[in-house]
Amino acid sequence: MTSLLIHSAAQLLTLAGSPQRGDELGRISMLNDGAVLIEDDRIAAVGPSDELLQRYPHAPRLSAKGKAVLPGLIDPHTHLIWAGDRAAEFEMRLQGKTYMEIMAAGGGIASTVHATRTAGSAALLAQTRARTEGLFRNGTTTAEAKTGYGLELNSELAQMELLLQLNREGPLEIVPTFLAAHAIAPEYQGQPDEYTDLICTHMLPALKAWWPQHAPEQLLPFVDVFCEEGAFNLAQTRRILSAAQKLGFPLKLHVDEFANLGGATLAAELDATTADHLIKTSGADIRALAASETVAVALPCTPFGLAQAEYTPAREILAAGGLLAIASDINPGTAWCESMQFVIALACRMLKLTPAQAVAAATINAAAAIHCQDRLGSLEPGKQADLILLSVPDYRHLAYRFGGNLVDTVIKKGKVYPR
Amino acid sequence: MTSLLIHSAAQLLTLAGSPQRGDELGRISMLNDGAVLIEDDRIAAVGPSDELLQRYPHAPRLSAKGKAVLPGLIDPHTHLIWAGDRAAEFEMRLQGKTYMEIMAAGGGIASTVHATRTAGSAALLAQTRARTEGLFRNGTTTAEAKTGYGLELNSELAQMELLLQLNREGPLEIVPTFLAAHAIAPEYQGQPDEYTDLICTHMLPALKAWWPQHAPEQLLPFVDVFCEEGAFNLAQTRRILSAAQKLGFPLKLHVDEFANLGGATLAAELDATTADHLIKTSGADIRALAASETVAVALPCTPFGLAQAEYTPAREILAAGGLLAIASDINPGTAWCESMQFVIALACRMLKLTPAQAVAAATINAAAAIHCQDRLGSLEPGKQADLILLSVPDYRHLAYRFGGNLVDTVIKKGKVYPR
Repeated sequence: MTSLLIHSAAQLLTLAGSPQRGDELGRISMLNDGAVLIEDDRIAAVGPSDELLQRYPHAPRLSAKGKAVLPGLIDPHTHLIWAGDRAAEFEMRLQGKTYMEIMAAGGGIASTVHATRTAGSAALLAQTRARTEGLFRNGTTTAEAKTGYGLELNSELAQMELLLQLNREGPLEIVPTFLAAHAIAPEYQGQPDEYTDLICTHMLPALKAWWPQHAPEQLLPFVDVFCEEGAFNLAQTRRILSAAQKLGFPLKLHVDEFANLGGATLAAELDATTADHLIKTSGADIRALAASETVAVALPCTPFGLAQAEYTPAREILAAGGLLAIASDINPGTAWCESMQFVIALACRMLKLTPAQAVAAATINAAAAIHCQDRLGSLEPGKQADLILLSVPDYRHLAYRFGGNLVDTVIKKGKVYPR
Repeated sequence: MTSLLIHSAAQLLTLAGSPQRGDELGRISMLNDGAVLIEDDRIAAVGPSDELLQRYPHAPRLSAKGKAVLPGLIDPHTHLIWAGDRAAEFEMRLQGKTYMEIMAAGGGIASTVHATRTAGSAALLAQTRARTEGLFRNGTTTAEAKTGYGLELNSELAQMELLLQLNREGPLEIVPTFLAAHAIAPEYQGQPDEYTDLICTHMLPALKAWWPQHAPEQLLPFVDVFCEEGAFNLAQTRRILSAAQKLGFPLKLHVDEFANLGGATLAAELDATTADHLIKTSGADIRALAASETVAVALPCTPFGLAQAEYTPAREILAAGGLLAIASDINPGTAWCESMQFVIALACRMLKLTPAQAVAAATINAAAAIHCQDRLGSLEPGKQADLILLSVPDYRHLAYRFGGNLVDTVIKKGKVYPR
């Protein structure tokens, strides 16, 4: 057994306890001069430094003096895997084109679908690996990652295969999501119901059959749908999610990014794990989410990336008693951001979270958003040893500063990765 | 003589020519497959790779294949030197207190003045050096830096001394500014005219006498004033700047951050090198600036840091024919941001600049904002060899992505610093 005693942390944020609902959000459970004992890939003990140093005198030590220590950041909504870039479109948007206009003109997701379908798997892997390294360097130890730039079975499964491979490679842990319903496939333009049929009757059963051979060690992936004008309407979304649910897949849902089609309430009704984006969300939707176990996932990088003024009504979600997490939404169209530190800084400014709330939304609540709250998201005995040491003594600098990287050391499954 | 031939750049942005006024802004002068020959600390030649490789077959080489190459970023407005932090105040602001309320309650600049006055010079130097390293790592090769957390002569001169020392240490080059007029000194609360007198009749002449002994090799520093409600009114600002000008100091001016006191027009009238902030700036002020040689310096991190919706009317300044630069304004109260890359990303979204305009505003025009346009800010024979290699082939990624660091290698005065 390999031990490591991290001690003398200026601040040790444990985030101990359950995911934090409504006004509870922000319970960071801070120890000054705290310590964590790691045994292999697990946390064995958490407590005051003097106590743990005395109790485990022979454990190898790593001093966190002058450093804040907290659970590894979890990014519960990413589109990590794609080929190419859309820098030219970014310029078009600056000149006033909207995201939906660019999409209607054959740009947007469609251009990334073309690039991703035609990239060789080595190129796709290399480009995606550069991003997984970026996330990890910035303190994200686990990320959800969606397929969705294939829109036909083989390409979607090839992306899933690469995500599973990157997860095996590590150190970033990847929790996969199948998002064939990211857009209407180019072969089905003007036939969204037919593409919906294809997903329900062909793709999802094929994924179910494929899974045990390719990821025997893992639970079934999430199935997600982009419920939005120009993508899937509410009826199509319901059909896909219901079909997925019947096959045993857990659910996620993109809702209310540009228009309210009723997706948030549907997510709550179907007991989806998360409802994500939530910009054009109504009071009734917020109440439906708050009355459910569905985690509301705010993605503030997306309106920031698009220079839009409207953000997720996070304070209303909390006031209603909802479960809130935050994520990067990293993707090539609207938000190429690899840093959950920046998401925290943005959430404090644009969603009006406190630094403690933003950190909880990026750790224990983000773990709940990928159904891993029993294993990840807090520093408690028995949980996986995923933690970060900051180069600063006060965790609030994650929110207060912006545009940089305050991570000094990342520890993933007990293994130390200095920056 | 030491030579280095940087060749095969995917994009070589030279920014050749004068600072770019009005609609001219954005002339990046791009070569594909470009090369730069460096001799000692100067640029000796710029051109197509095949041409330079043939012309200088014996020069040591550095391949920039797959990388965009551009002049080192210049940050023309920073408050780099301070002690302590104001993370707690950041939390207060999130809870609804305004910057001016915090300042009126004895917080704000006053708390940093106290921390900076009482920090030993070793601590102040170490804390500031960490920031100079942060700027440099993010591709800033030259930064203006202001005193201003002393507000009494000895402390202001001690800060100036440390800035000169950090400049000598390198690699970040520092162009200093004297900002005793950053706030009314605590000893002069309620007596702004008396503090103004002190600056004019005592501090500025003392600085003038001090300078040749401490920085014999350097031109006089800039003198700057915070012209703002609660700081210096227009009459006091005029007195300080006029006194500075009589002594031969070049001028800078903080104007219109929270209220319009007429500072922008005063800056133009006095031929100040820059007028900075420019949020509450009127059409008449913009016309006065555009008719002058004064560079308008937009500081988008400040409204971003404060989560305010109003930014510098950059497009109006350009439409009027003004000279526009951008800067970080890094400071402990409103904007602790060490990355001009983030300033570029923000400027495209919030000031509606194109990526090319933002890059020009952060290089050749930023050089003009510190009066160094003849020596810095572009890649042209005879200029100082300050350049950055990005890890990506397209400079637009500086604007398109955000929250990360795309710098692969920094070259300062001809010396190579890999990341």
